[in-house]
Amino acid sequence: MVAGKDMSGQLEWSVNVPNGRSEILVPESGAVNRVCLGIKGLVVGFVLKIWRFLEKAWNLGVSEPKKVIHCVKVGMALSIVSLFYYMRPLYEGVGGNAMWAVMTVVVVFEYTVGATLCKCINRATGTFLAGSLGIGVHWVASQSDEKIQPVILGISVFLLASAATFSRFIPSVKARFDYGAMIFILTFSLVSVSGYRVDKLFDYAHQRLSTIAIGTSICIIISMLLCPIWAGDELHRLTIRNLKKLADSLDGCVTEYFKEDETESINEKDTNNNNLQGYKCVLNSKATEESMANFARWEPAHGHFNFRHPWKQYLKIGAAMRNCACCIETLNGRINSEIQAPEFLKRHLSDVCKRLSSHSSIVLEEMATTMKTMRKSSKIDLLVGEMNFAVEDLQNALESLPKQLMISSPLLAIEASNDAKEELIMKPILIPLMDILPLATVVTLLIEITVRIEGIVDAVEELADQAEFKPQSDQKKSKQNQPATDDHDDETVKTLQKV
Amino acid sequence: MVAGKDMSGQLEWSVNVPNGRSEILVPESGAVNRVCLGIKGLVVGFVLKIWRFLEKAWNLGVSEPKKVIHCVKVGMALSIVSLFYYMRPLYEGVGGNAMWAVMTVVVVFEYTVGATLCKCINRATGTFLAGSLGIGVHWVASQSDEKIQPVILGISVFLLASAATFSRFIPSVKARFDYGAMIFILTFSLVSVSGYRVDKLFDYAHQRLSTIAIGTSICIIISMLLCPIWAGDELHRLTIRNLKKLADSLDGCVTEYFKEDETESINEKDTNNNNLQGYKCVLNSKATEESMANFARWEPAHGHFNFRHPWKQYLKIGAAMRNCACCIETLNGRINSEIQAPEFLKRHLSDVCKRLSSHSSIVLEEMATTMKTMRKSSKIDLLVGEMNFAVEDLQNALESLPKQLMISSPLLAIEASNDAKEELIMKPILIPLMDILPLATVVTLLIEITVRIEGIVDAVEELADQAEFKPQSDQKKSKQNQPATDDHDDETVKTLQKV
Repeated sequence: MVAGKDMSGQLEWSVNVPNGRSEILVPESGAVNRVCLGIKGLVVGFVLKIWRFLEKAWNLGVSEPKKVIHCVKVGMALSIVSLFYYMRPLYEGVGGNAMWAVMTVVVVFEYTVGATLCKCINRATGTFLAGSLGIGVHWVASQSDEKIQPVILGISVFLLASAATFSRFIPSVKARFDYGAMIFILTFSLVSVSGYRVDKLFDYAHQRLSTIAIGTSICIIISMLLCPIWAGDELHRLTIRNLKKLADSLDGCVTEYFKEDETESINEKDTNNNNLQGYKCVLNSKATEESMANFARWEPAHGHFNFRHPWKQYLKIGAAMRNCACCIETLNGRINSEIQAPEFLKRHLSDVCKRLSSHSSIVLEEMATTMKTMRKSSKIDLLVGEMNFAVEDLQNALESLPKQLMISSPLLAIEASNDAKEELIMKPILIPLMDILPLATVVTLLIEITVRIEGIVDAVEELADQAEFKPQSDQKKSKQNQPATDDHDDETVKTLQKV
Repeated sequence: MVAGKDMSGQLEWSVNVPNGRSEILVPESGAVNRVCLGIKGLVVGFVLKIWRFLEKAWNLGVSEPKKVIHCVKVGMALSIVSLFYYMRPLYEGVGGNAMWAVMTVVVVFEYTVGATLCKCINRATGTFLAGSLGIGVHWVASQSDEKIQPVILGISVFLLASAATFSRFIPSVKARFDYGAMIFILTFSLVSVSGYRVDKLFDYAHQRLSTIAIGTSICIIISMLLCPIWAGDELHRLTIRNLKKLADSLDGCVTEYFKEDETESINEKDTNNNNLQGYKCVLNSKATEESMANFARWEPAHGHFNFRHPWKQYLKIGAAMRNCACCIETLNGRINSEIQAPEFLKRHLSDVCKRLSSHSSIVLEEMATTMKTMRKSSKIDLLVGEMNFAVEDLQNALESLPKQLMISSPLLAIEASNDAKEELIMKPILIPLMDILPLATVVTLLIEITVRIEGIVDAVEELADQAEFKPQSDQKKSKQNQPATDDHDDETVKTLQKV
C-alpha cells in the first residue's frame, strides 16, 4: 500500500512492504539533488572561469611571444641568483646576505632593457648615497649621549624621509628617479636605525652594496644578452604602427562616408570597423609613449639607434599624431550622424574627397616607411605636394558646385512640373544651407586633417634630421629585409587587441 | 726696458728692473682669471639651478598642501616603526627582524588611502600564499636526497617565478594584483631557497608575516586617520573640475571665434587662452582616472561615498568627456585656422552660436553641480531642452540665411553700381560655398558638441541612479556648505598648472 503523509509541512511518501516495515521514499529530485546540482554548477562555473582565464593567458602568450621570453628570463635570473644559497663558498662569500641579491633580482628585472637599467642604476645610486649618509648620521649620533641617540636618529629619519618623499612629487624627479628616491628612504632608514643594534655597520652596508651589485649585474647581463627587449625599439615600432593605423582610419572613414553600396557582408563591415577604430589606439597611447621614451634614454646604442638617439622627438611625433587623430575622431562622428548630406551632393564630391584621403594616407604611409627604413624619403615633398593639389581640387570642386548643379539640374527638374522646367534649368538651384552643412563639415575636416598631417611630416623630418637618417638610396634592399618581421609584428598586435 | 718675448708660442712680457733682474709680468686678465670666472660661472649656474628647483618645489608645496601632509605622514610612520629598533622589548619581540617592518612602511605607504590599502592587502596576501607554498616545497625537497634538493628547489623557483611574472601581463591581474604577484615571487624565492640554509624556517616565515603585519597596520592607521587622502574623493573632484573646464573651454572657444574687438589686453588674452586650453587636461586625464578608480575600489565607505560606490561609472563619464573634448579641440583648431568666414556671415550667426554655447556650458555646469552636491538635478531636463531649442534656433537661423541676406543686401548693394541696385535687392545673393565652409563647420561642430554633451548627461544620470543620489530638495543648504572648499581647491589646481 502506498500512502501520502504530510509531515512538518512536507509531503512524504512511504511504502508498506509485505514484512510489516514501512520504507520512506526519498524523492530523487529533492533537496539533496538540488544541492548536488548547485555544487556541480559552482564547480563547473569555477572551472569554466579558470579555463577562460587560461585561454586568455594562452592567447596572450601566443600573440606576444616576447612576453613569454621575458618570463623565462626572470625565472632564469632567479635560479642563477639562488646559487648563492646552494653553493657554500658563494653563500659565505656574501656573508649570508644572499637574500638581498634575490630581492634585487625580483624587484629590478623589468620587461625592457631600459626599465631594468633605470631601476638598477637608481637602486645602486640610491643605496650608495643613503648608505653613506646613514653611516654619517650614525657616527654623529654615536658621538652624543646614549639617551639622545635615538632622538637624533629619529629626527634625521623623519626629515630625510619627508624630503625624499616630497621630491618624488616633483615631475622631473618622478620621471627619472622615482625608484631611486624610494630606495634612498629605505636604505637610509635601515642603515641609520639598524646601526643602533647592528655592531658592524660598515660591514653591513658593504655587504648590502655588494649583494645589490651581484643582483643588478645578473639582471643587466640576462636582460641585455638573451633576446633583449629594447624600450627604444618598442617605441619606434609603436610609432610606425600608429602612423599606419592613422592612415587606415582615415581611408576607412572616408570610404565609409561616401560608400553607396549598402549590401556589405558582415565580415567586411567588421574588418572595416576594426580599421576605422585605429585612431583610438593613437589617442590612448600617450602614457605608453612617455614611459617608453623615458626608459629608452637609459639604453645604450642598439640596432640602428645611437646612444643619443632623439627619443624626445618621438613624443612630438606622438603629439602630432594625436592631434590628427582627434580630427579623425570628429570625422568618424560625422559618419554615424543622423543628419546626412543629400546623396547628389555627396556623389558630386565623392571622388575628390576620396582622392584627397588616399593622398593623405599615402603621405602617412610614406612617413611610416621613412621611420621603418630609417632613411630620408626622397619623394615626401612630391607626395605632400600631391596632397595639397588634391586639397585645391576639392576647393575647386566646391567652388564650381553652383555651376555644376545648374548643369545637372535637368535631372532633378524631371520631377518638377513641365511649366517650371524651363525656369529650373536657367536659374541656379539654391541649396538650403542646412543640406550643405554635413558635407561642408566633412570637407573642412578633411582639409584640416591634411594640415595636421603636415605637422606629423614636420615632426618626422625633424627626427630624421636629428637622428641623421641617410638619404634614400638603397631603399629597395632594406625594404626587402625589413617588412617580413614587422608585418608579423603587426599581426601579433592585432591579435592581442582582440584578446 | 720692456721687452716682448715669444716663448712656447705664448707672448710674455718682462720688465728689466734697475738692479739687473728681469721680472715677468703676469697678465691679470689672463688664464687664472678666466679659470676663476669659469668656476664662478659654474658655481652660480649650479646655485641658480638648485634655487630654481627649490622654488619649483616650494610652489608645488604651497599649491598642494596635501602632498606636504603626505610627506609628513611618511616621516611619522617611519619614525614610529623605527621604535622597534630603539626599544629593546619591541626589538626582541620581533626577533630582530624589525627590518621587514621598516621596509614594509617604505614600500607600502602611498599617496591615497586606496593605493596604500591595495598594496597592504596585496603584500600580506602575496606573502602568506607564497610563504605557505614555499614551506610546502621546502618540505617536499627535504624528504628527498640532499643532492637533488637544490635541483627541486631551483626548478620550483624557475616555474613559479615564470608563471607569476606572466600573470602580471594579464590586464585583469595587472590592474589589481600586480604588486601582489611581485611579492609572491619575492617571498616564494626567499622562503624556499633560504630554507636550504635557515634552520628554523617556520619561525622565519612567522616573523616575516608578523613584521609585515606591524608595518601594514601602522601604514593603514596613519594614512586613514591623519588627514586621509581618498582616491575616490580625488577622482570625484577631478571629474567635477574636468566638467567645469569643458564648459569654460567651450564658452571660451566660441567667444574667441565670434569676437569682433581685436583690442584685447594681453592679460585678458592670457586668461582666455588658459580657459581655452582646459579641454587638453580632459584629454590627458585618462590614465589618472583609471588608476584612481582602481584604487577607490579598495577604499571603505568615506564621506558621501558608500563601499560599493559605482567608481567604474566615473570612467564612463570620463570617456564621454574626452569624446566631447575631442570635438572642442577640433573647434579650437578652426579658431586658429587661416581660412575664416566672411565677417557679415559671422555676425549673422554670432548671437545664436553664442547662445547655444552658453546653454551647452550651463548644462555642463549643472552636471558639475549635480556631482558636487551629489543630488539629482531637478532642472537638467529643462536645461537640456533649452540647449536643444538653441540648436533648433541655430538651424532656423541657417535656413533663413538666404532670405535674411536678401533683406540685408541693400547695405552691400550701396557699393554696387546704381543700375544693378534694383536687381541685387530682388535676387537672392549666391554665397560661394567656399565662404560658407568655415562657418558651416563651426556650426556643425557646435551641434555635434551638444550631442556629445547629452552623452555626458546620460553618463552622469546613470551615476546618479547607481549611487542613489537624492533628489534636489535642500540643495541651497548644501550649496552653502560646499563651494568654499572646492573653489579653493580649483585655485590650487590652477596654480599648480602654472608651475
